[in-house]
Amino acid sequence: MNIDRAAVKAAVKDTVTVIGLGSMGSALTAALLDRGHPTTVWNRSPHKAGPLVERGARLASSPAEAVAASALTVVCVLDYESLYAVLDPADGSLAGKVLVNLTSGSPQQAHEAVVWTRSHGAEYLDGAIMTTPPGVGSAEMMFLYSGSEAVFTAHRQTLAALGDPLYLGADPALASLYDAALLGLMWSTMTGWLHGTALVTAEKTEATAFTPVAVRWLTAVAGFLTTYAPQVDAGHYPGDDATIDVQLAAVDHLIHAAESRGIDNSLPELLKSAMSRATAAGHGADSYASVIEVLRNPAGAAG
Amino acid sequence: MNIDRAAVKAAVKDTVTVIGLGSMGSALTAALLDRGHPTTVWNRSPHKAGPLVERGARLASSPAEAVAASALTVVCVLDYESLYAVLDPADGSLAGKVLVNLTSGSPQQAHEAVVWTRSHGAEYLDGAIMTTPPGVGSAEMMFLYSGSEAVFTAHRQTLAALGDPLYLGADPALASLYDAALLGLMWSTMTGWLHGTALVTAEKTEATAFTPVAVRWLTAVAGFLTTYAPQVDAGHYPGDDATIDVQLAAVDHLIHAAESRGIDNSLPELLKSAMSRATAAGHGADSYASVIEVLRNPAGAAG
Repeated sequence: MNIDRAAVKAAVKDTVTVIGLGSMGSALTAALLDRGHPTTVWNRSPHKAGPLVERGARLASSPAEAVAASALTVVCVLDYESLYAVLDPADGSLAGKVLVNLTSGSPQQAHEAVVWTRSHGAEYLDGAIMTTPPGVGSAEMMFLYSGSEAVFTAHRQTLAALGDPLYLGADPALASLYDAALLGLMWSTMTGWLHGTALVTAEKTEATAFTPVAVRWLTAVAGFLTTYAPQVDAGHYPGDDATIDVQLAAVDHLIHAAESRGIDNSLPELLKSAMSRATAAGHGADSYASVIEVLRNPAGAAG
Repeated sequence: MNIDRAAVKAAVKDTVTVIGLGSMGSALTAALLDRGHPTTVWNRSPHKAGPLVERGARLASSPAEAVAASALTVVCVLDYESLYAVLDPADGSLAGKVLVNLTSGSPQQAHEAVVWTRSHGAEYLDGAIMTTPPGVGSAEMMFLYSGSEAVFTAHRQTLAALGDPLYLGADPALASLYDAALLGLMWSTMTGWLHGTALVTAEKTEATAFTPVAVRWLTAVAGFLTTYAPQVDAGHYPGDDATIDVQLAAVDHLIHAAESRGIDNSLPELLKSAMSRATAAGHGADSYASVIEVLRNPAGAAG
């Protein structure tokens, strides 16, 4: 009989260290414990570790001890200032380790963290968590990673305990860049939804009645994005389905309806301005995707 | 043996008239013909009827003749000015008929159209088409209706040839109001996506690589909207998952990343301003849903 070495290995889960036990770090730790990973934790305020220690986590007495406990350390703290404040005193433990940094930050900060980590002999993977703490541990939720592909591949199975791990590329800044871009999409969508909700709730419709229609509509909108993405890559925006000029006529209905109900119109006015600038730049008969030209070239379009 | 009267009735499809054969009106007519509805059409430029007549449509010689041909007339013209220009000369044919108006317009224009239609002895249903012409005929696509529920119910099966018919309520302005709100959501989402696409494509990522991630992220965002809708109805916005203050810190990463790549930042600056106003109004520890308070009360929040 063969011994199924892969099955044996899968049954023995890698040990992991988690530094930072805010609501997100605590959720990451809980997800690792749920999947059977022996997990060491550290947090500046040790009392936050209490509920996790009850579930089996081991509390380290210092960041250095925490980093030394596992080959892989996941860091999720408030910002990069906190990250260096925690890791600087632990730098002697970093040699030969892997640091997965899930702290929110800018692409530039990710680049700096690679340099810092490598100077201490550790490998670095940057990540972005595309969910809220209650979503951690669900395979539906995306975790974005960038940096060394070899490190990602080696630890992919462990990272899968946190959510669905997507590898974006070798440039360590990509996860932060995608994170910023996707958060911008989220805030735009949420603000557009809130503006529409303000409009319909002014007419005795409940948000809970409007929102299922809005959510279903987002599926159609997602289809438009999928149609428009190749137009953006080609720099050619055929307006077969709906031209900017037609949409410019419709945006006034929104502005007037909101204005007469006393609702802030700065968002639809901005959208109208973007469409107007696209039309002025010669894209009136093109699709909405051509608005990217004025976003990429604000000075030119304004002049 | 019983005669299955329902089956016999279903096999004999109601005749329908379509007025206006732009790209949308032509798609509506094609969908009706595809489902076996005898369809009469009229358009100011009769040559547009050619391809539809080849597929079995009957071309009327006047709007009055077109309206007289069917119990149900669907109108989809450029705007309400065009609507009255076409239907005024046909007003003698309207008595006892049903007018389904899919022309884009404002809630106020829908109210005026009910009065006008009733003054000619016809019933009125207002509608909004939540797809582009290629999506017409798909049961996945939403067609929103408001006005007489009895009229909607009587013609629901015929309207289902065009898309999935959703009835919003007796106020005839609701379809236009939802339409405006949903288009605002669409433009907000598309512009947020284009801004994010401008950001990642500045770093040699293709729009077609970023967009599947963005589309998947929209599913998570839709989950947030579903979480936040009851908060809006309750006027209480617990920030358990993510507070405005935390998101205000993150929006600067987006603004700096876009600024350093020469991308127009008016959209993220507006989003930051909305969040800042919410924080100033005491919602810093609340969820993003609390931004609706500053949208509803722009003067108060600005003062």
